[in-house]
Amino acid sequence: MAQKLRIIPIGGLGEVGKNMTVIEYGRNALIIDAGLMFPENDMLGIDYIIPDYSYLRDKADMVRGVIITHGHEDHTGAIIHLMDEINAPIYTAPLTRGLIEVKLKNAKMLDKVKINTVNAGDRVEIGPFGVEFYHACHSIPDNFGLGITTPLGLIVHSGDFKIDHTPVDGKVTDFAKLGEFAQRGVLALLSDSTNATRAGWTPSEAVIDGALDQVFRDAKGRIIVATFASLISRIQQVINACVRHNRQMALVGTSMVENSKMALRLGYLNAPDGLIIPIDQALTLPDNKVTIMSTGSQGEPSTIVGRLSLGRNRSFDLQVGDTVVISSHPIPGNEEMVARTINRLFQRGAHVIYDPILPVHVSGHASAEEQKMLINMLHPQYFIPVHGELRHLHRHAALAREVGIPDENIAVIENGTVVEFSEEAGMLIGERVPGGYVYVDGTGVGDIGPAVLRERENLARDGFVVVNLRIDRKSGKLAEKPNMISKGFVFVRDSEELFSMAAKKAEDAAMSANGNGIVKSVETALAEFFYAEMKRRPMVFAIVNEV
Amino acid sequence: MAQKLRIIPIGGLGEVGKNMTVIEYGRNALIIDAGLMFPENDMLGIDYIIPDYSYLRDKADMVRGVIITHGHEDHTGAIIHLMDEINAPIYTAPLTRGLIEVKLKNAKMLDKVKINTVNAGDRVEIGPFGVEFYHACHSIPDNFGLGITTPLGLIVHSGDFKIDHTPVDGKVTDFAKLGEFAQRGVLALLSDSTNATRAGWTPSEAVIDGALDQVFRDAKGRIIVATFASLISRIQQVINACVRHNRQMALVGTSMVENSKMALRLGYLNAPDGLIIPIDQALTLPDNKVTIMSTGSQGEPSTIVGRLSLGRNRSFDLQVGDTVVISSHPIPGNEEMVARTINRLFQRGAHVIYDPILPVHVSGHASAEEQKMLINMLHPQYFIPVHGELRHLHRHAALAREVGIPDENIAVIENGTVVEFSEEAGMLIGERVPGGYVYVDGTGVGDIGPAVLRERENLARDGFVVVNLRIDRKSGKLAEKPNMISKGFVFVRDSEELFSMAAKKAEDAAMSANGNGIVKSVETALAEFFYAEMKRRPMVFAIVNEV
Repeated sequence: MAQKLRIIPIGGLGEVGKNMTVIEYGRNALIIDAGLMFPENDMLGIDYIIPDYSYLRDKADMVRGVIITHGHEDHTGAIIHLMDEINAPIYTAPLTRGLIEVKLKNAKMLDKVKINTVNAGDRVEIGPFGVEFYHACHSIPDNFGLGITTPLGLIVHSGDFKIDHTPVDGKVTDFAKLGEFAQRGVLALLSDSTNATRAGWTPSEAVIDGALDQVFRDAKGRIIVATFASLISRIQQVINACVRHNRQMALVGTSMVENSKMALRLGYLNAPDGLIIPIDQALTLPDNKVTIMSTGSQGEPSTIVGRLSLGRNRSFDLQVGDTVVISSHPIPGNEEMVARTINRLFQRGAHVIYDPILPVHVSGHASAEEQKMLINMLHPQYFIPVHGELRHLHRHAALAREVGIPDENIAVIENGTVVEFSEEAGMLIGERVPGGYVYVDGTGVGDIGPAVLRERENLARDGFVVVNLRIDRKSGKLAEKPNMISKGFVFVRDSEELFSMAAKKAEDAAMSANGNGIVKSVETALAEFFYAEMKRRPMVFAIVNEV
Repeated sequence: MAQKLRIIPIGGLGEVGKNMTVIEYGRNALIIDAGLMFPENDMLGIDYIIPDYSYLRDKADMVRGVIITHGHEDHTGAIIHLMDEINAPIYTAPLTRGLIEVKLKNAKMLDKVKINTVNAGDRVEIGPFGVEFYHACHSIPDNFGLGITTPLGLIVHSGDFKIDHTPVDGKVTDFAKLGEFAQRGVLALLSDSTNATRAGWTPSEAVIDGALDQVFRDAKGRIIVATFASLISRIQQVINACVRHNRQMALVGTSMVENSKMALRLGYLNAPDGLIIPIDQALTLPDNKVTIMSTGSQGEPSTIVGRLSLGRNRSFDLQVGDTVVISSHPIPGNEEMVARTINRLFQRGAHVIYDPILPVHVSGHASAEEQKMLINMLHPQYFIPVHGELRHLHRHAALAREVGIPDENIAVIENGTVVEFSEEAGMLIGERVPGGYVYVDGTGVGDIGPAVLRERENLARDGFVVVNLRIDRKSGKLAEKPNMISKGFVFVRDSEELFSMAAKKAEDAAMSANGNGIVKSVETALAEFFYAEMKRRPMVFAIVNEV
């Protein structure tokens, strides 16, 4: 029997195949990307989330290669975890390699991992897969789409993409290669669905230049531009604006400094000599000669911009007349935090410029018309929308139907769903394998599950009370008034009366309980008492000590 | 010396004067609105938030009246709390009165509160204030803007507004009244800033009719429309669509049912006889004859739509082929929850229609061009942007400057900032009084502050551990191995080794501590141990019992 080709999206919270996709043929597997996601607001205490690639664990020897399509965290951030378990070479572009090497170095894994540098236009044979890397525009240089020739046909994986005719680095998407793929015949297209619910075309990154010009023209004082540390092309745009408007630039924030150094070294950032200066030097210049490029565009309180908004930055303070440019959109779930930070910056006397005040950020992902363009360029036999939540995939599927892909040739799938291709049956939806995500919290990878999160949720809502009962062994009576520890329930200092009533309730419950049921009786009585008094439900624990 | 006129926005989280505004002249105060806000994502365990009107407490006898501009929660939701302390009559419109009376009744306060019904066009003298109520479009009928004639001049308070030329109830904003105000001369305009960062005009509610027509035409099965229970005009639009497309309608969700009953009784909702039927009856009809109108448009897991998305609704289940219309936008901070709910509805086989797929919701607030329109219609001497976060107020101020209001005549203020008007000095920014918000949690109003929230945050992040040490009074040694209670830190069942190592650490720390430092020593040792092992920081408490 002929082998089947299997495609499995793995990981990425709600987003299907965002952080990892596996392609299998026989006993050969190819991994595309190894990214992380940041937790949603109700994933309390979780540091970050990585794909649940447990499916790959007992097939580790099958993995022929790991392709990283570009250098953003949601495609690279789990590389340390993955390479700890998978012994296969990485294939990626020079800039992405530079960004990954920073991670591997920090984790002391640089020696253990083999990385092959590939360039747009290259074809590499990886096991039974002939992988062609083609250039596609996104918000970082060196971004790849993939044409993967398999024994069953050509699979095109769009990676993250937009169709930008005037990108910052001047390198447009390789339409010729897409045309060639179409000529050869595309079995299936996996395509980026992020912006499927946005009509029209995503604006070119070029619009940001105009917006920055306006900001730089109007600013009387310092300009502080905040963006993601991995948004290399945005850093270049700010460098260009500094050249046009005769300002010098300082970079702040560890990841911003590290990434820029590497990108300058590799030639992905270009700045005239002397334009980039250390922050200490920048602070000595006249305000209207300085631009500071910083992390913190998501408003996180621990970043430079977060600290500036709170008046807690060490090396320099916000001053009245500063212009702060928030050059990013909020990551879903961060809207509130970003808005609050912008408000605080205003409160401290800054002019704050953000989209929609001016288009100082544009999305790096294709909107509906671009998505249809890609489908029409490739006219694939089968279509699998990926990189999006279910609502985006369903919308992308609707767009594909509009441009003529038959409904039965479209697979809207979830993480862990296997899509199988065979000579006989074409595309079929196969089994479901583990393909969700795993929480990382401190040193724990995957040890926190729904049970602990539920406990954290309860504690977050109403706190806890622990009551310590000392019972005299001889008399069976309480040796002293029960003492209590409580956090997160009420303001203890103002609640003396409540706790003294509670102590009485605990004593009554302990005395009226039969011998072995004291703990339970006390806990139930206290829980009921606290709810009756406060309409709150703290977790209640009784400790009984015979003394 | 002549009296001063003072305007003080109070409460509303980040939004200035959203929930309450106070206007004072001499020993007379007028309160405008008494609303609530829902907590932000990091206000753990808080039920809702009300204005901090402690400033009014020792001036309670000065309050001449409480005006409620319209029936939305952010303008009415604190009425129970306010009327508990303020003994002044309420002035409001019939529909708003109906909605408030539901609240007062549930709180058994209906007898204690005097309500005066007023209608658009009325003028009422309240103390030294001549208050003219004028009709302004919003997303609920009976919405007022206010013209307040004071001894120092005419103050116009826009209330929530949009300029809708084709509103659902056919009643457009009273432009003639605005013209008359302008003729008389407007001292100051307080105007709704919610959508100041949106360019252009907010679409009319009429566009929703077209979107609903498309939904109703395409739907083969049941249609479930989710919106806010107080969005009376949306309910009317769905009734109208049912009439046009020959479906019957059932209402579900307590608040939706209560509000609709009242609005039908008062004539604010109009439905042909027999169109509205009980849900039990609706469920017996053919699917393509049924529309269900429900709460839950914010995805809250406890609401009907939330439960349907989780497969946990009692009276009926979602079925494949249902069309679910989310007829609202996410409240800021709810974006993630709404998106997740939409994804789950898709997962269960529903078609989900939401903006931007179709314009099934439009904002009830004016965008930038409408805001400029109002300023240009009234050409006030002074301008105070309200109803918005600082970033919206600053934008609204910029719009006001664009249309010719001098910068020095614009006051961008925060909650609790007093704006003073006097004959001599015109407008001045005065003192700052308490004017923020207080948390309501269970029966507690204002007892939860930053300290308890920080505890909840710590517990939410890493949980807690309590260790109970029983020390033999004679030997000074531990009488038995320390036992521990832990929640939210690790999955206890898989962590036997961790806790047994921790018990050893606790014992060592207890034995090496000098007499009175046992508790502290043990807590410090355990905290360090847990951080070294897990890179987590649970709250640690030691209890020492001599036995």
